[in-house]
Amino acid sequence: MHATIIGAAGMLGRKLTQRIANGELPHITSLTLHDVVSPALPDFTPNHEIPTRSVTGSYTDPEQAKALAAERPELIFLMAAVVSGEAEENFDKGWDINLYGGLTLLEALRAEHVASGESYTPKLVFTSSIAVFGAPFPDAIDDDFLCAPQTSYGAQKAMLELAVADYSRKGFIDGLSLRLPTVTVRPGNPNAAASGFFSGIIREPLAGVEAQLPVADTVRHWFVSPRTAAEFLVKAATLDTALLGGRRSLNLPGVSCTVADQIAALTRVAGEECTALIVKQLDPTIVTIVSKWPQNFDASRAIALGFSADKDFESIIRIYLEDDAPQGLPL
Amino acid sequence: MHATIIGAAGMLGRKLTQRIANGELPHITSLTLHDVVSPALPDFTPNHEIPTRSVTGSYTDPEQAKALAAERPELIFLMAAVVSGEAEENFDKGWDINLYGGLTLLEALRAEHVASGESYTPKLVFTSSIAVFGAPFPDAIDDDFLCAPQTSYGAQKAMLELAVADYSRKGFIDGLSLRLPTVTVRPGNPNAAASGFFSGIIREPLAGVEAQLPVADTVRHWFVSPRTAAEFLVKAATLDTALLGGRRSLNLPGVSCTVADQIAALTRVAGEECTALIVKQLDPTIVTIVSKWPQNFDASRAIALGFSADKDFESIIRIYLEDDAPQGLPL
Repeated sequence: MHATIIGAAGMLGRKLTQRIANGELPHITSLTLHDVVSPALPDFTPNHEIPTRSVTGSYTDPEQAKALAAERPELIFLMAAVVSGEAEENFDKGWDINLYGGLTLLEALRAEHVASGESYTPKLVFTSSIAVFGAPFPDAIDDDFLCAPQTSYGAQKAMLELAVADYSRKGFIDGLSLRLPTVTVRPGNPNAAASGFFSGIIREPLAGVEAQLPVADTVRHWFVSPRTAAEFLVKAATLDTALLGGRRSLNLPGVSCTVADQIAALTRVAGEECTALIVKQLDPTIVTIVSKWPQNFDASRAIALGFSADKDFESIIRIYLEDDAPQGLPL
Repeated sequence: MHATIIGAAGMLGRKLTQRIANGELPHITSLTLHDVVSPALPDFTPNHEIPTRSVTGSYTDPEQAKALAAERPELIFLMAAVVSGEAEENFDKGWDINLYGGLTLLEALRAEHVASGESYTPKLVFTSSIAVFGAPFPDAIDDDFLCAPQTSYGAQKAMLELAVADYSRKGFIDGLSLRLPTVTVRPGNPNAAASGFFSGIIREPLAGVEAQLPVADTVRHWFVSPRTAAEFLVKAATLDTALLGGRRSLNLPGVSCTVADQIAALTRVAGEECTALIVKQLDPTIVTIVSKWPQNFDASRAIALGFSADKDFESIIRIYLEDDAPQGLPL
């Protein structure tokens, strides 16, 4: 089968691509990687190469969306997004990429479905976010809890979830939306996500660099490692959506812990010299945004479907060291 | 202040317009009535005429939306919609009117907000629907329950609610979404709403005409009279949205009763000869659609804000006789 990854140059897109190259989804026999910046080809195991095409452009352009749909991929990962901080700052760009881009793609897929005599009905895995939720919250948010986003990013994700569900209900696609916990520890440079500091306070000290903590260490949040997030995407690709019973948005399991728990885990892994590099300096903008974010979930539906969280935040740090920080500990 | 009613030629739009003409919102000093068919002017009390402009066109046309916004109405009722049955039948038309039309209007209002140096921030009252909810349901749906619509109409309403909330959060408009119970007894001819029979089994027998009941009489649903629905709109026009605390979608109170309760109420009002005109004839399509509809709500948030339901279904029938069936009972 042909698979297409939209947003393939992003951190999670690259990890997913590499897993496919490793043969984790053996039914994929060819691959299109799409992003606004040229997606790198993965490293293939010798004698296991999959024909892979790298396409650069914007999927919000109806012609591009049409071209992507015309390849009739049987599996599509829709991962392209403007992150929360940028969508809050640049209102037009957030709506264009996060909502209208997705709707344009859905329309292109519906046109192919119709043109195929309704035989083409691709599986679509959409990466949504826990930003679809807004305060006030119950102790643990379950899959029956309302979407009341407090950011434009969250509103755009929640709206596209609804469209994915309706296009699926009508039989044009077979979609599901994964509400990923905050992916932490993100490798590389900080991005414009308001949640970036959750990674920064681990990643920077491990590299011997100071990191700003812009909120109180009592803040509780919901985390997944990049490795586990990529596993979720692989699992979703073959999940029987009939098991979702018409509710195609899934709260995925994560680790609920406070910033103080994060810091304690970092101390256990790398010592107090490392955590000493975390500088507390409140940022009122970030404090306000984060105060409206969810802290804990009841992900029992996803767990029953076979999705498993990281063990704890210490495991999340060790995964970062193994997968993304090959220099290891700064000793 | 200038007020604009989009969807003014509809049944509820006309009732709202007449209430404004009666002076129920005395701060309104001029009025634009907009619809795809020419909205009729209301009857004004002598010496209490409000300058009223009737505009025919589609608000999904960006130029029309721009022209409506350019009048800078301080109050807008967004009531234009393709009803549920038609949106299910005509997928493109449903999305164009119910979602893209609303988004086009929001963008036009944001442009005026920006052009005014952010001084223009209109109040917007959007008529949403309990179709935003989908089964399985708790015993009573409260304002924390998720939107999992099982019709395109419901998906479109839920998506526009999210956009209204986000444009409001950003301060471009001051919006709220009213999830009206099913408005019953609708006067006039049947429309394409799948819920039409809830009115038909009352309206037609009262006019001495047979009416089809396409579902079992055990079906329970959630009702409001047109009179009370129009009162909700009037009340929402002056509601302080700060009281909504960032959750701008409101489940409005209604009467929860079964079709059997409806028929018993009709017998009490008009006798068994009248109810004998109800012909049970199951329609599998309607049965399926209705089986996914909500039955009962906890509307305590709206009640605390001062919204009051009809007393019972018998009252709803009597309101129909008083307001919309001037010929009275068929005796």
